[in-house]
Amino acid sequence: MVRSSAPVFSPQTLRSSPRAFSPQPSTASKTWEISASLPISYVVQLCSDVLNPANLALANAGADGGRDSHRRFVVIDHVVGELYGSRIRRYFDVHGIEARFVTFDACEEYKTIDTVLELVEQLDEFAIDRRREPLIAIGGGVLSDIVGLLASMYRRSTPYVRVPTTLMGLVDAGVGIKTGVNHDGHKNRLGSFHAPVHALLDPCFLGTLDRRHISNGLAEILKIALVCDERLFELLVDHGPQLRRSRFRSPALREVSGEVLIRAIQGMLEQLEPNMWERDLERLVDYGHTFSPTIEMRALPELLHGEAVAIDMAITTMVAWRRGMLTGDQCDRVLSVTRSLGLPTWHDVCGPDLLMDSLHETTRHRDGLQRIPLQDGMGAATFVNDVSAAELTQACDDLRAG
Amino acid sequence: MVRSSAPVFSPQTLRSSPRAFSPQPSTASKTWEISASLPISYVVQLCSDVLNPANLALANAGADGGRDSHRRFVVIDHVVGELYGSRIRRYFDVHGIEARFVTFDACEEYKTIDTVLELVEQLDEFAIDRRREPLIAIGGGVLSDIVGLLASMYRRSTPYVRVPTTLMGLVDAGVGIKTGVNHDGHKNRLGSFHAPVHALLDPCFLGTLDRRHISNGLAEILKIALVCDERLFELLVDHGPQLRRSRFRSPALREVSGEVLIRAIQGMLEQLEPNMWERDLERLVDYGHTFSPTIEMRALPELLHGEAVAIDMAITTMVAWRRGMLTGDQCDRVLSVTRSLGLPTWHDVCGPDLLMDSLHETTRHRDGLQRIPLQDGMGAATFVNDVSAAELTQACDDLRAG
Repeated sequence: MVRSSAPVFSPQTLRSSPRAFSPQPSTASKTWEISASLPISYVVQLCSDVLNPANLALANAGADGGRDSHRRFVVIDHVVGELYGSRIRRYFDVHGIEARFVTFDACEEYKTIDTVLELVEQLDEFAIDRRREPLIAIGGGVLSDIVGLLASMYRRSTPYVRVPTTLMGLVDAGVGIKTGVNHDGHKNRLGSFHAPVHALLDPCFLGTLDRRHISNGLAEILKIALVCDERLFELLVDHGPQLRRSRFRSPALREVSGEVLIRAIQGMLEQLEPNMWERDLERLVDYGHTFSPTIEMRALPELLHGEAVAIDMAITTMVAWRRGMLTGDQCDRVLSVTRSLGLPTWHDVCGPDLLMDSLHETTRHRDGLQRIPLQDGMGAATFVNDVSAAELTQACDDLRAG
Repeated sequence: MVRSSAPVFSPQTLRSSPRAFSPQPSTASKTWEISASLPISYVVQLCSDVLNPANLALANAGADGGRDSHRRFVVIDHVVGELYGSRIRRYFDVHGIEARFVTFDACEEYKTIDTVLELVEQLDEFAIDRRREPLIAIGGGVLSDIVGLLASMYRRSTPYVRVPTTLMGLVDAGVGIKTGVNHDGHKNRLGSFHAPVHALLDPCFLGTLDRRHISNGLAEILKIALVCDERLFELLVDHGPQLRRSRFRSPALREVSGEVLIRAIQGMLEQLEPNMWERDLERLVDYGHTFSPTIEMRALPELLHGEAVAIDMAITTMVAWRRGMLTGDQCDRVLSVTRSLGLPTWHDVCGPDLLMDSLHETTRHRDGLQRIPLQDGMGAATFVNDVSAAELTQACDDLRAG
């Protein structure tokens, strides 16, 4: 019997048949209430020089103390492979680890289930033990999300280690437990919550990151600053442009660089930890993420994730200002800092219709309510459920003009 | 820029480049230890006549008390749709629920990620709120596994309700939290742990199930009997063939039918609940699941899951007998009951090579150790890590001859 790769789907064609159901009495009835709890724990470690063979962190990450195995499947962004390939290979060689290295172009357009499936085939070919041979993801946020989903699905969950190489990875995608790929035109439509066993955050990688990707990560740092951490905002006001230019690597800005990174990561983790699986859908870290999923997908490949987030934040900044939740001066400062970080506050794909479409979609994602965090003074936010088309039209007019 | 649907993968082609890494000192170092716990709870309810509009269980399953929504995406096995379609439609009509019904041929060959993706597209088109509009899966174990994975991946997790319609679904696939699809020739290679919000087990559906699928489910009941519940084994000895013939629906066997179902489900849940995410890889419910994944995949589409499990159990029964863990009489009783339930104890795809291949693969799945449960007397088992090729060859000879 030959079958095609997918069955015939018949939406809305339910029929009855002569063999219709005739209920029979049954005495079998019983109810079981099942309760269980999945504890997770992982380490987020900001450190230096993870590719130095003298640094054992990467070799030990996720290893099972008593039953060590020396095989690793390592997925690497192709740009990272070009820059750091020989160092990565040497690191595993020195530690006697049999590693399979796979590189690919981890951009938003390839953040697809097809990419995950290609990796599954290579992983099948290499073959790993289920628990003591963690996958290792070395790359930016997109790669981290893809490998996280691979690890989550493979044998219903396989341990993995995150080694972010971009600022977006360091402060956002690399520190939480979300995984995902885009699908059917929707951002992160398919994914999972799957904690890494270890996240090794090494700012040394930023030294080779292009400035647009520095700005991309700065958008998520700005997000945390705007809704949680006024001091972080002031640091961005005072040092943002220099941090961007120096890629967080200037000796003169060493302390500021460290403080900005630690505050951003700390702020993110404080928001995530009590709400890991998003039982509570009012999330401050969703600031900038109401309209941006649709903006990003429609503008693909023009906007990076952080750029779309920056535009979303600019829109809600205008709404908050018109509502009197921000003063004109605060509003100006926010927009001015955004631009000083090399981030856009507008893209021509935007407009009232697209914003209402994205709000409709996000409302479904937030289970029927808008739950939009609006800045309410600096370093604070309030959730609202009543942002109107008129307000979004006004925000578009304000930003297009500005 | 036009791109193909998947990026170019370059295994083992890491190069270095002139822009090589130059480590710079950094003062930023800090470690965060993240701990959280995901509590799950769900109800497994053995009940009658779930499609009777007077029974509110299905309409209420997974509904959010305070913020009820009357929309449901309902995935139905196509045979179930033919038999029960008009009743299902009427049930939702009566309750004023706007339902989208999708039917498909949920057999093992279509248990693929492609099927999940087809469902994603239909779900995108229907559109649901994230938490208060649970998916509903009405069908057997294969359908339950597929819809479970869909629910798990969609928006990183969406609630779903399981309504098993086969015996395999009632006693096995429908009561736990595992989801999965086959991939790359491997059984359940991709999947997740994702608890349903409710499992409604209605034995009335068995009245229209073909006998081969009754036997298919009896294999999992026999599994529980052999390693956990000697009384259940005796019930199968005494009543198994009549239960099979009557599809658990004979008024004369009402009490026995109820006891067998309740013991099987109870035994399964007692094993699952303390080890939901398989932190412990020594699982009694893996009895019959060491060789069967490979046997089933290689024999596809000839063997149903339970049939492959029955063959696996016959193999380990012979190994246990040769090791003196079962008497000759016990061994004969096990094989005789297996056959009396309409289940095979052999398939020509088996042989020492295939069994060693499958053992190798299962050992990876069990993280480097065989962890094979062998029956150790009736209703009990012991885990072993040293089953040899010679023992498997002997078991093949024994069974081929028998």
